[in-house]
Amino acid sequence: MEPGPLGAAGPLEPGPRVRGVCGAAPAASASSLAVAAVLPAGGSGERMGVPTPKQFCQVLERPLISYTLQALERVCWIKDIVVSVTRENMEAMKDIIQKYQHKRISLVEAGVTRHRSIFNGLKALAEDQPDSKLLKPEVVIIHDAVRPFVEEDILLKVATAAKEHGAAGAIRPLVSTVISPSADGCLDHSLERARHRASEMPQAFLYDVIYAAYQQCSDYDLEFGTECLQLALKYCHVKAKLVEGSPDLWKVTYKRDLYAAESIIKERISQHICIVMDIKEDEEHVGRHLEEMLKNELNHVKVTSGPLCHAGRDLQQIILEQCYSFVCVNVMTSEFEETQKLLNMIKESHLSVLYPVVVISVHFLDYKSVHFDHKMENLMQIRELAKEVKERNILLCGLLIYYPQDEQKLQDSLRQGATIIATLIKERNSAFIGQLLVA
Amino acid sequence: MEPGPLGAAGPLEPGPRVRGVCGAAPAASASSLAVAAVLPAGGSGERMGVPTPKQFCQVLERPLISYTLQALERVCWIKDIVVSVTRENMEAMKDIIQKYQHKRISLVEAGVTRHRSIFNGLKALAEDQPDSKLLKPEVVIIHDAVRPFVEEDILLKVATAAKEHGAAGAIRPLVSTVISPSADGCLDHSLERARHRASEMPQAFLYDVIYAAYQQCSDYDLEFGTECLQLALKYCHVKAKLVEGSPDLWKVTYKRDLYAAESIIKERISQHICIVMDIKEDEEHVGRHLEEMLKNELNHVKVTSGPLCHAGRDLQQIILEQCYSFVCVNVMTSEFEETQKLLNMIKESHLSVLYPVVVISVHFLDYKSVHFDHKMENLMQIRELAKEVKERNILLCGLLIYYPQDEQKLQDSLRQGATIIATLIKERNSAFIGQLLVA
Repeated sequence: MEPGPLGAAGPLEPGPRVRGVCGAAPAASASSLAVAAVLPAGGSGERMGVPTPKQFCQVLERPLISYTLQALERVCWIKDIVVSVTRENMEAMKDIIQKYQHKRISLVEAGVTRHRSIFNGLKALAEDQPDSKLLKPEVVIIHDAVRPFVEEDILLKVATAAKEHGAAGAIRPLVSTVISPSADGCLDHSLERARHRASEMPQAFLYDVIYAAYQQCSDYDLEFGTECLQLALKYCHVKAKLVEGSPDLWKVTYKRDLYAAESIIKERISQHICIVMDIKEDEEHVGRHLEEMLKNELNHVKVTSGPLCHAGRDLQQIILEQCYSFVCVNVMTSEFEETQKLLNMIKESHLSVLYPVVVISVHFLDYKSVHFDHKMENLMQIRELAKEVKERNILLCGLLIYYPQDEQKLQDSLRQGATIIATLIKERNSAFIGQLLVA
Repeated sequence: MEPGPLGAAGPLEPGPRVRGVCGAAPAASASSLAVAAVLPAGGSGERMGVPTPKQFCQVLERPLISYTLQALERVCWIKDIVVSVTRENMEAMKDIIQKYQHKRISLVEAGVTRHRSIFNGLKALAEDQPDSKLLKPEVVIIHDAVRPFVEEDILLKVATAAKEHGAAGAIRPLVSTVISPSADGCLDHSLERARHRASEMPQAFLYDVIYAAYQQCSDYDLEFGTECLQLALKYCHVKAKLVEGSPDLWKVTYKRDLYAAESIIKERISQHICIVMDIKEDEEHVGRHLEEMLKNELNHVKVTSGPLCHAGRDLQQIILEQCYSFVCVNVMTSEFEETQKLLNMIKESHLSVLYPVVVISVHFLDYKSVHFDHKMENLMQIRELAKEVKERNILLCGLLIYYPQDEQKLQDSLRQGATIIATLIKERNSAFIGQLLVA
């Protein structure tokens, strides 16, 4: 058994927070700090094996850096976020900020190395720079554009530790043993794993400490160095406080990390499903059985349900709580009236600016009640509807649940329906919009 | 810019090889070596945050360790593969070996630590053990059950280097700076990244060297050590040769790594698509346009096509080349005759033992030629057919392409059809089997 990293991955953190609303408790203890963040984003992503720099790679059709900005800007005690980007990516970055409505962002030009990019970011916060428009912070957080899963908790820990110690950085246990090769490419010695840690991001510094360190830096440091904590130690004799971080801090480095990031984001935004039914809450109906099965299928997922007509206000609340998955169960009708109402509410909410919102319109196919052909014709309208809302980043799909007399067969249909719903929500794939799936 | 790991990730390696067929060139230089492999698989996966040990976690409905065994057993110069598993997982492991038809595997009981598990594996290969049935190898490779993407190339490199130097191990550049904390949790110093490497797996040893090292090992080493190279150095004064490995060597450690592994495997088995058409090869037809669009949609994917009736032998060859994605384009008929023939060939080939095989039955919906209702009724048979072949790990799905008079609309239909096909192949999700999607 290897001496593992200290914390198990554990259950995933709660999903993305509401834009602009701060966590309550941490904010209190951070309110006394004037904090800014610097995000070097000038990297070329050469390890990725793809032409696009990794911070601009698309995850669910949104650039990775936008997720990182979202993670920082939801922390309201971070007053300014300075991003260093290369000249060639400057326009693209401005478009990202506009499209995803990022706030409190300032852009500066990246240097040719990571350290130079950070230094440029720090200069934008300095008092001694002629064209500086930002206020000098007491503490500055330095983070990576390619670590999108940073939580407020660790940001607060490094910021407060930096205020006390002058510098602080997140660390993680080593996953592999670290060795030192000899000149002939053989093992010289291996390092004791328990005595070493991987230095991760975020890091935080008293602004005056890290700015002074960069001002004294040699060209060699600026060209070949990577570690800000080391600069604070070397030039300002400040020993950084080390803070154990969670596995979420990992850096998107290889192509596989992009896959992982996409899966994690999909999982996070699928943790809450809202079921809307066109029947009263106390009515017993097949829609209720579907709901039960869906709860079984999707472990740990919060399922909220209610009629749309009564749930107008509730639904507003649910949308505010960042629910990105909706199931509209139409028991009484084969029309899309209810689904259309739901789509309108989602459109008005701007919910789909950051993530694709899945809406599944469920209908029951009961041979007795209505002619098959007529019903199908009605339902095929979903194709046009889906095309229209796709432009707003809403993924609409139809599900027809066969409603036989036989109780056992009905259960099978419902179970298959629940599986299809769960998959559509988890995969969130735009190729299936407008389809009418059958269970 | 950080001084990055040396090799870029580059294009992905070719997909899984044909079972039992060795790579030609490497095998020649390895043929003089008697090589066995030891795979410790007794870990509990506590870092994963899931109850199942990570080597037994399912990836595409197959345990991760089966992928690693597949990677080792396809290298025919590895004569024996000894796997250490805990007593409680012994039966499950036997089932895995039987279900996925793994060859040349011997099971031994794992110890309570990684080193003890490796030692138990080595003992099974020793001459001096009373009940040993395996031949003592000249070189033994030690690998991890949770590194499924190991290539023959690196296995050969460490094995040949071990023959020359006594020991060898794969290394990778460090992703993060490594630091040493002081007793009070502050930064003591950071290590120069360029002078250190991460020690990865596989490693290889002259059998006599590593067995002697383990025999001399202290209890402390066996309990708390992790690094086999270190044991060879400490007890046999053998300085291991270090071999730069590819990013593929990474270890599945966290839940995100499982996501990444699944995405990589899906990508690998989707690199080759076989299109079967019920028309002659030189015929110009809408099916050809679909093929073109699919080639555009799926960059870098090899697309093979031909009529099924003439392609019987070719198809056998394609199946042998481990193609796991089939598109059956039915131009002449709305029946499933051709699709059924294709399914039978796949069933006979045992192709789907290791990976789910996707089959998409494409039909054209031409309002002129046949009554809609009748056609739909025929096509709904796909549900029963899909249920039947699902048991054989074949995922069958239908696609109906609307065939309007208007040339522009037809192009749109075909484009959407290509997108749906590409997504079904990439996602390989069993929830959509038996569906009839419409483009």
